[in-house]
Amino acid sequence: MIIVMRADSTEQDVQRVVERLGEHGYGHHISRGEQRTIIGAIGAPDHEKEEVAGQFSVLPGVERVVPILKPYKLISREHNPRPTPVMLGDAQIGGGRLGVIAGPCSVESADQVMQTARAVKDAGAAALRGGAFKPRTSPYSFQGLGREGLEYLAAAREATGLPIVTEVMDPRQVDRVAEVADCIQIGARNMQNYDLLKEAGHCRMPVMLKRGFSATVEEWLKASEYIAAAGTLDIILCERGIRTFETATRFTLDLSAMAVARRETFLPIIADPSHAVGISSLVGPMALAAVAAGADGLLIEVHPRPEQALSDGPQSLTPAAFAELMGQIRTVAQAVGRQV
Amino acid sequence: MIIVMRADSTEQDVQRVVERLGEHGYGHHISRGEQRTIIGAIGAPDHEKEEVAGQFSVLPGVERVVPILKPYKLISREHNPRPTPVMLGDAQIGGGRLGVIAGPCSVESADQVMQTARAVKDAGAAALRGGAFKPRTSPYSFQGLGREGLEYLAAAREATGLPIVTEVMDPRQVDRVAEVADCIQIGARNMQNYDLLKEAGHCRMPVMLKRGFSATVEEWLKASEYIAAAGTLDIILCERGIRTFETATRFTLDLSAMAVARRETFLPIIADPSHAVGISSLVGPMALAAVAAGADGLLIEVHPRPEQALSDGPQSLTPAAFAELMGQIRTVAQAVGRQV
Amino acid sequence: MIIVMRADSTEQDVQRVVERLGEHGYGHHISRGEQRTIIGAIGAPDHEKEEVAGQFSVLPGVERVVPILKPYKLISREHNPRPTPVMLGDAQIGGGRLGVIAGPCSVESADQVMQTARAVKDAGAAALRGGAFKPRTSPYSFQGLGREGLEYLAAAREATGLPIVTEVMDPRQVDRVAEVADCIQIGARNMQNYDLLKEAGHCRMPVMLKRGFSATVEEWLKASEYIAAAGTLDIILCERGIRTFETATRFTLDLSAMAVARRETFLPIIADPSHAVGISSLVGPMALAAVAAGADGLLIEVHPRPEQALSDGPQSLTPAAFAELMGQIRTVAQAVGRQV
Amino acid sequence: MIIVMRADSTEQDVQRVVERLGEHGYGHHISRGEQRTIIGAIGAPDHEKEEVAGQFSVLPGVERVVPILKPYKLISREHNPRPTPVMLGDAQIGGGRLGVIAGPCSVESADQVMQTARAVKDAGAAALRGGAFKPRTSPYSFQGLGREGLEYLAAAREATGLPIVTEVMDPRQVDRVAEVADCIQIGARNMQNYDLLKEAGHCRMPVMLKRGFSATVEEWLKASEYIAAAGTLDIILCERGIRTFETATRFTLDLSAMAVARRETFLPIIADPSHAVGISSLVGPMALAAVAAGADGLLIEVHPRPEQALSDGPQSLTPAAFAELMGQIRTVAQAVGRQV
Repeated sequence: MIIVMRADSTEQDVQRVVERLGEHGYGHHISRGEQRTIIGAIGAPDHEKEEVAGQFSVLPGVERVVPILKPYKLISREHNPRPTPVMLGDAQIGGGRLGVIAGPCSVESADQVMQTARAVKDAGAAALRGGAFKPRTSPYSFQGLGREGLEYLAAAREATGLPIVTEVMDPRQVDRVAEVADCIQIGARNMQNYDLLKEAGHCRMPVMLKRGFSATVEEWLKASEYIAAAGTLDIILCERGIRTFETATRFTLDLSAMAVARRETFLPIIADPSHAVGISSLVGPMALAAVAAGADGLLIEVHPRPEQALSDGPQSLTPAAFAELMGQIRTVAQAVGRQV
Repeated sequence: MIIVMRADSTEQDVQRVVERLGEHGYGHHISRGEQRTIIGAIGAPDHEKEEVAGQFSVLPGVERVVPILKPYKLISREHNPRPTPVMLGDAQIGGGRLGVIAGPCSVESADQVMQTARAVKDAGAAALRGGAFKPRTSPYSFQGLGREGLEYLAAAREATGLPIVTEVMDPRQVDRVAEVADCIQIGARNMQNYDLLKEAGHCRMPVMLKRGFSATVEEWLKASEYIAAAGTLDIILCERGIRTFETATRFTLDLSAMAVARRETFLPIIADPSHAVGISSLVGPMALAAVAAGADGLLIEVHPRPEQALSDGPQSLTPAAFAELMGQIRTVAQAVGRQV
Repeated sequence: MIIVMRADSTEQDVQRVVERLGEHGYGHHISRGEQRTIIGAIGAPDHEKEEVAGQFSVLPGVERVVPILKPYKLISREHNPRPTPVMLGDAQIGGGRLGVIAGPCSVESADQVMQTARAVKDAGAAALRGGAFKPRTSPYSFQGLGREGLEYLAAAREATGLPIVTEVMDPRQVDRVAEVADCIQIGARNMQNYDLLKEAGHCRMPVMLKRGFSATVEEWLKASEYIAAAGTLDIILCERGIRTFETATRFTLDLSAMAVARRETFLPIIADPSHAVGISSLVGPMALAAVAAGADGLLIEVHPRPEQALSDGPQSLTPAAFAELMGQIRTVAQAVGRQV
Repeated sequence: MIIVMRADSTEQDVQRVVERLGEHGYGHHISRGEQRTIIGAIGAPDHEKEEVAGQFSVLPGVERVVPILKPYKLISREHNPRPTPVMLGDAQIGGGRLGVIAGPCSVESADQVMQTARAVKDAGAAALRGGAFKPRTSPYSFQGLGREGLEYLAAAREATGLPIVTEVMDPRQVDRVAEVADCIQIGARNMQNYDLLKEAGHCRMPVMLKRGFSATVEEWLKASEYIAAAGTLDIILCERGIRTFETATRFTLDLSAMAVARRETFLPIIADPSHAVGISSLVGPMALAAVAAGADGLLIEVHPRPEQALSDGPQSLTPAAFAELMGQIRTVAQAVGRQV
């Protein structure tokens, strides 16, 4: 933590900062330039509490406080320098293997899930996705089949062997979902639902954490630190598009965020082009772009009849389109030295 | 709902749309222009389901689907044309009265809450705010006092008569918080935590719904519709700043969103300048701006010692600064025909 | 400038930074913490060149470079601590006087301008605005009357005594516009058109610089520094709304940016609620909000027949609506201690 | 154009709209639903003027106006359905060939340009980029060598045969730059500098139009329509990152915008990963992502000594890093069926 004093700060202001540093267990180091005095906090506690920076920023004469250390630890490269894969059942995500997780947005019927599961399995998917509990912006939209949906997912796993990734929205559902799922998904709208993050971390099973659509990379990593602090490091990060001024696509897939996060953490990072663009004809190009940019996996929506889907039809691929895309994904993955 | 066909769509494409409209219980109306054919859906069901628009958008030959009706009902001006106040205990928010809700970001101690409550009461606040359960971006930050904090809030109400506004983050806490609070606050990060919205609505007590920092006005209103559909119309909307590219302030207070929301809903709408700007010296100007723009109330952070606050110190006013601001608020409120 | 070294940087990396600092005429100050080494650049040249920070950031072992000094000088409070008004003819903008600049978006005819000028003069406007050269997003939209429009503006000044504010888009037009205008307006889309900024600064007449709709406050101030460096400090800054994800309004009026800019510069700052919201019924509330937030003036679009306007009809007030708003503006201005 | 009437509009309101449509040469088509009356404008003029939509939106009883036709013509797929390459000298951009345009951000010296030109030529670049006139956010930053810089670029072309792409910022420079350049670049900050667009279009030589960092795809295409209307269809569009809330990268490369633009226009579209990310280690992954997403070319900054660059050093590749990246680009291009 560095404290930059205002040009018109007084010696008394500087001394007050120094005293407060002492009270928080910091040493200090003063550098008096011609235009600004700068105070470095030394011998820091093991991490810089954000509230402490806030407290210093309101002392008289302080212009601003510059944090120096990273605001996350367990999920950082400083904690574990090597990119580390996460296993979903037998499927490996990361560590040189690119895993494609595919399936419908919502579980709508036993038949729909089974049909999709078989199709994506045949095309080479590593896992099946499907939502039984659905976050919908309108209370009048289809809200998911709930527990019944979980049963259909379990049946599809039984039949195909594909591990299951499914979303949980409410801390009270976590245990129930964890009984069925191979990986718990925390959706973008819940990325900062901290009680849910803690509950998911307690399960000690793989968790996929989607980036909030307005979360910075730093906030995303801090949210994953909540899960890590609660008990599991089997976390998959998923970039799914951010909200920008552009309305031609539903969101803007931010592939450079993946690259930035990769420098900071050892966790595998995948991309969800389906939710990002919201238009099925753009899913393919953006899936390939994500692979070329270094994604450890993809999350792709597939529906046997998109024109009848109860959610996200416009962005869902048909099984045939998905199978074709898988071929292209394999080719591009190979070009960048990865296996599907 | 209007369906715009592509320039190269065929008669068969048009017929398929018409058939599907019939299956959904719609009549239709075809307008063939020189450059585009447009199909209007007539005799609509009582509202336009978003998933249905999605389904039509993927039919062959369809360029886009334009929704016509509003995606909310209970909270709309079409349902109740007159702006309607919400009572927090004896304090009225809206309906020509401007209510100021003030207090610390976090409840930190019995003494801190009591001291603040007395100060804001003396300065003319209508209600006391204070968080016992805190959403913090870092798992290593102070997470709130929990139930102990609720007790301190109850004691402050006992002593000052101020109604209590406090946040709930977890559906499992709603009942406990509702026992103490006069108004349940749903924070910005939980605006789309739908299970929490439903649970809050079930309590049938006043709910303050903060706008998500990346939520459009339409999404905010749809989130309030969740609460309304679950059982209460005593909802206060709170604009608290949106995330933009500008980093000089923590968020950007979007006062025109208040004005837009006011045209759509009868619910009272207040502003939270403290969280929006994140810098105490800017809270005053933005509080006055919100009043001039027509806010029904304000949410303002006050802390007896901002330089020791465990959260949001940089944006907290001292009791003295708050008292001075209240004087200015009264003057501006009077200038726009409102009473504090 | 402070240089933060990476945790894994070597002594050699530190020495290389120190050497390079010497080459640029800096002294240095090294602080070795347990987790990071930090190097302060001392005895800096009179300002920190941004390209130099960039050069240091790519040296081996450097994590990041933190600039300390402000990137503008002439327009800063450090250069002139007192807010300083700008005179448009006899009209004062700033210094405790709130000046309202009103008129049509585009000059469309002699009659339209004259009629509007008389109306806004009667209602108490301080200056007349109107565009002869128009930046339009489509090449097929009305592009303005050009020189003919300037003549109509000159005639309106002749008749009413109101000073003229009009936009210039092309460096080749600056001299011609300067012959007629009392204040040259640089539009939001040209805020970073540096050749135009320089040319405007050379005229040594008042310049109104609109904030680019995606410019940070810092970039806006740096753009005004271009004008200042070219020869004039008679600059009025105008906040006119930024682009955000919200589409309910055309742009988002960022009033806290005015408050931030005010801390940094002595230049007067006004707001343009008309372009920001794009909807006439919202112009009034946002104009009052801007006044309450401390604006030194307002820019408001007025058109005798908005439903026939060749540009920006949806956000234009009729003369009657403008006159009514002026009454409210006076009341709110008085409440915050300003005169119109 | 469709006009949606408010629920409380009157028959008189509808008639007024119909009359005004007649005055503008439109027929009409009225659809009276239970909840809304909708009026379609028929037999439209050859395009829908935006100002006309604005005029209708302020008529009494009108809720909103929905445009139906595209706001651009010459550059649209409806005008020319086939993607069409642009030639820079002998180098083809688009039409199945991926052209890499590389070079320094700024021309700094004869030697720097010549050295870079030889290196990028050897590595397989199709053209040389380099700025002689530089848009810099600070007036105190290096502003480019101007005409001297153009001479160095001409010399580099002479020596290597590479066509030259260089930026023009001021309409008065266009002729001078056109004498030397093989392609005139319009930078992101000038995308809506309409006088410059017209002047560039008059030259009838290839123009590269960068997307404004806050421009929607629609605005970008409308800006290119200005160039087309002024006389040339040899336009290359360049996506270079948009401004979002994320600050970990300089901008956010919006690859899905390329895919959206491709559906609308036949013009070739390239990507500039260097300016988008602003960090040299991320340029490679994003360049490969752009290729996989279907870019017709890339714009990449290369500098012989990034740590001494007078602009954009942090994002510049060394010649060695560029040569290595070119190998990867070739591999990925081949995987998606393109030739470099």
